[in-house]
Amino acid sequence: MKNSLELQHSWRQRLGAWIAQNRIQNIIMALILVNAVVLGLETSDYMMQHWGRPLRTVDTVILSIFVIEIALRFVAHGWRLLRDPWGLFDTLVILIALVPASGPLAVLRALRVLRVLRLITVVPSMKIVVQSLLTSLPGLGSIVALLGLIFYVAGVIATQLFGDAFPEWFGTLGASLYTLFQIMTLESWSMGIVRPVMEVHPYAWLYFIPFILIATFMMLNLFIAVIVDAIQTQRELIAASKMAKEGKTLTPNHVEDPHHSSLSGTNQQLLMQEVQEMRAELKELRVLLRER
Amino acid sequence: MKNSLELQHSWRQRLGAWIAQNRIQNIIMALILVNAVVLGLETSDYMMQHWGRPLRTVDTVILSIFVIEIALRFVAHGWRLLRDPWGLFDTLVILIALVPASGPLAVLRALRVLRVLRLITVVPSMKIVVQSLLTSLPGLGSIVALLGLIFYVAGVIATQLFGDAFPEWFGTLGASLYTLFQIMTLESWSMGIVRPVMEVHPYAWLYFIPFILIATFMMLNLFIAVIVDAIQTQRELIAASKMAKEGKTLTPNHVEDPHHSSLSGTNQQLLMQEVQEMRAELKELRVLLRER
Amino acid sequence: MKNSLELQHSWRQRLGAWIAQNRIQNIIMALILVNAVVLGLETSDYMMQHWGRPLRTVDTVILSIFVIEIALRFVAHGWRLLRDPWGLFDTLVILIALVPASGPLAVLRALRVLRVLRLITVVPSMKIVVQSLLTSLPGLGSIVALLGLIFYVAGVIATQLFGDAFPEWFGTLGASLYTLFQIMTLESWSMGIVRPVMEVHPYAWLYFIPFILIATFMMLNLFIAVIVDAIQTQRELIAASKMAKEGKTLTPNHVEDPHHSSLSGTNQQLLMQEVQEMRAELKELRVLLRER
Amino acid sequence: MKNSLELQHSWRQRLGAWIAQNRIQNIIMALILVNAVVLGLETSDYMMQHWGRPLRTVDTVILSIFVIEIALRFVAHGWRLLRDPWGLFDTLVILIALVPASGPLAVLRALRVLRVLRLITVVPSMKIVVQSLLTSLPGLGSIVALLGLIFYVAGVIATQLFGDAFPEWFGTLGASLYTLFQIMTLESWSMGIVRPVMEVHPYAWLYFIPFILIATFMMLNLFIAVIVDAIQTQRELIAASKMAKEGKTLTPNHVEDPHHSSLSGTNQQLLMQEVQEMRAELKELRVLLRER
Repeated sequence: MKNSLELQHSWRQRLGAWIAQNRIQNIIMALILVNAVVLGLETSDYMMQHWGRPLRTVDTVILSIFVIEIALRFVAHGWRLLRDPWGLFDTLVILIALVPASGPLAVLRALRVLRVLRLITVVPSMKIVVQSLLTSLPGLGSIVALLGLIFYVAGVIATQLFGDAFPEWFGTLGASLYTLFQIMTLESWSMGIVRPVMEVHPYAWLYFIPFILIATFMMLNLFIAVIVDAIQTQRELIAASKMAKEGKTLTPNHVEDPHHSSLSGTNQQLLMQEVQEMRAELKELRVLLRER
Repeated sequence: MKNSLELQHSWRQRLGAWIAQNRIQNIIMALILVNAVVLGLETSDYMMQHWGRPLRTVDTVILSIFVIEIALRFVAHGWRLLRDPWGLFDTLVILIALVPASGPLAVLRALRVLRVLRLITVVPSMKIVVQSLLTSLPGLGSIVALLGLIFYVAGVIATQLFGDAFPEWFGTLGASLYTLFQIMTLESWSMGIVRPVMEVHPYAWLYFIPFILIATFMMLNLFIAVIVDAIQTQRELIAASKMAKEGKTLTPNHVEDPHHSSLSGTNQQLLMQEVQEMRAELKELRVLLRER
Repeated sequence: MKNSLELQHSWRQRLGAWIAQNRIQNIIMALILVNAVVLGLETSDYMMQHWGRPLRTVDTVILSIFVIEIALRFVAHGWRLLRDPWGLFDTLVILIALVPASGPLAVLRALRVLRVLRLITVVPSMKIVVQSLLTSLPGLGSIVALLGLIFYVAGVIATQLFGDAFPEWFGTLGASLYTLFQIMTLESWSMGIVRPVMEVHPYAWLYFIPFILIATFMMLNLFIAVIVDAIQTQRELIAASKMAKEGKTLTPNHVEDPHHSSLSGTNQQLLMQEVQEMRAELKELRVLLRER
Repeated sequence: MKNSLELQHSWRQRLGAWIAQNRIQNIIMALILVNAVVLGLETSDYMMQHWGRPLRTVDTVILSIFVIEIALRFVAHGWRLLRDPWGLFDTLVILIALVPASGPLAVLRALRVLRVLRLITVVPSMKIVVQSLLTSLPGLGSIVALLGLIFYVAGVIATQLFGDAFPEWFGTLGASLYTLFQIMTLESWSMGIVRPVMEVHPYAWLYFIPFILIATFMMLNLFIAVIVDAIQTQRELIAASKMAKEGKTLTPNHVEDPHHSSLSGTNQQLLMQEVQEMRAELKELRVLLRER
């Protein structure tokens, strides 16, 4: 019994390693690219009339290969595959293509092309970019929450103040939130929305101008914080891999706060380490001198 | 007499501590969230027709609890509560809800939802974000003043040059300032405003293009300065709390200019301290060597 | 003769010092603010009908005081006043108010309010902000020149390609440059300009999309470079004043490149100095040890 | 035979050096500026009617000189000239002017003005700016690829979802990509595109708002990454030239990753070197002390 389990394990591990090998992944990558072109061609009416049949066949064949690949990965890793966000992403994207896309789910047909986003999973450099952008999100939860809070409060106020006079823009909380998002992007905010509103409520600018200042500022703040953190994360990954080669390890307190270190944090950490070791040597020297 | 005063003090302190404890604040937070949902539902005509009575009851109950809480905090802290900007904010937001919102003050009914912003006071991480954004404002007073000055001067010029031909946009100083704000956000500035103006005053671009360049630049400058300062403030708060744990204190000259230190200022400060201590030790060493 | 010259000199110097003293400058500042309010009130037809006479009187009185002040400064400093950019600015702004603003020069009447910008000269903190923004401009001459070159080339191409079909937008080189500036600010570029153009020239997007990407990118690059340099300049000014107090001087090579040092350059410069002095001490130590 | 080859070589080298000398390049620069003015004047119908002949003559003469210059450079450097991107650029820009611009190639007539961009090749400071911007592009290939992937996937989805109802905006994949680019720039996205679409597909905002957030964020990320890298590259070039003067060389690991070092990387590298040399001296000291 124990032997068969071990055998099964090693067999699964070998399967997992076989799928993850570069050659197989390069084939998958090529198939994704071919699939992207096919799905692009399918948007053209002319192509569908003259080449509809072969395009659909190629699509089905590639999808089948993707299904087999993901099935093999399930066999190799079991349900743990869904705990890895990238594995979950790959599975969802394939599942969308398998849902019978008719009736109320017809919109899912258009989402089949999300499959092409698997390119991110397969190309390591794109994966790193996406990961470094996502890594910084949890640390910025409070800014996102603050922005959500401001939108919610502003939406309720706008619905109550302007909802009766302008039902299309501020009739419901949802309509208000959409309109406020438009105003935050500064699209037609004045000529399209606020000037007409001001003809009914002359002091509406007292509401809209502070909202614009606060919302665009918070949004810019959020974007810049994510970008600064992402650049920082990428640099730390590169610095970490370089230090790993040189046989050094990061100091523990560096690991503690990966998100909020300074832009040039990693280099300074190294410098600090160097200086601290020097000081230790100086103390030794003094001891040596005093001893004599 | 003295005893009763002390007793009163300790009784007040215990009350203050009791309100500030995590369990009470979590209840307040939960009530704010429930209140937010209720105030959101009240914007829907359908909900108000079918559930108007219970929604208003919940609203009144929650408001009563908030009034009791703020009253207890007044008992505990006295008028000092209003000297703390957050206490002032909490009080104002509750007062708005108590004003009879009818007649010319009907607009205050819509502002009741500002009560939900108390979430910022209750959630520490959101409070830190807001504080770090506000902290940098006084240091940027001169940029804000400069931007105000530019708007004022540009507004007066625009009113005198274009006021007669375009009374809707530049008829009064107020109208001009609003239109200039719209132009600064780049919304419909050319197709909506400047091209029509240029049909009457062909050289109007000599006024508007410099204004756009200067105003958008100053605004971006202000936003980026606040964001850089806020990131810096947050890092300093984190570094300070870490140093507090390690039993070190900030050097005095660090405290002197909290606003204008470099992005990686805190780390460098530590490094500098380390290097200066090393130099002191080196001097000692030389003295030791010379003595002998 | 020599004595009278010296006497004249010292008399002039005393006059210059008398005008530059804080009390006088504060009076000037107050007068500028009063003048700003007066000029603002003059834009209102209602105010001009009812209070026109006293407003104009106040304006004339304040202008006279400004003329006297600038005249005294000319007596004190001579033509050198015009070599200082701020002196030149003050003089120009006063001269505009003295030109008889009628006939073709009527537009100058509207520019009288530029006088209020003298506030920048009088308030030191605003002067520093403006100076730090202007200081970085010469170092960015090549980006400005590049942007100008791109606009010129794009303007000539647009005039030749689209001038015949859309004379209002691209009829002359000037019209093209204005339209391209509008497109760079992204205002109505597609719905207003490029979609109509694409109905005549279907491949016009091959011209406009690269232009948008290049022009907005260069503009953002220019703005960010100026802002980063301005922040840096301000920090250096502050650090320099702090070092001046501590009796240290900047290292010469720091002075050589004020524009391109790193964000945290000044602190690092100090650190570097500290480390280099330590190394010198170490060498001394070794000599001491070897000697014995 | 060998002698004649050497002679030929040295003759070619001397020719190359002769063309590259400052005096010749300044004449070329002056001719480019004159040519820029001439090509600008040629856009004016009035100028072409009255001065058409001389303008065209000047244009032809200058073009001839450019052709001779590029021909001499070909003689001097051979086909290697095309391997240098700047040489290739100069050649292409001249070739465009020589193509007979009639019939289907009439558009090339408008591109003759691209010749003026040779100014970048001739003015070193502009060349450095362009180079520092281009240098960072390869390192950002994965962000560009990611942005392209997002646009492609979003384009296919939009064509399938909205193509039938709005053929002008989403009829083909090309139309969709153009419209999505417009939406990314936020131009008329809501009033012009999404509000009309939402009248047919009420849930279209579920597609457009995430697209706007992701696309504008990725674009800002790309722009900021390029700008930060360009500033960094320029500083490194300046620091390298300064170090070259001082007879120091960059440490090898600095050269390894020119793109991802920190903002203040170069200074820190120098500091690190200094500190490491100090530590080496300290070790020597200890050895000296122990020996005795």
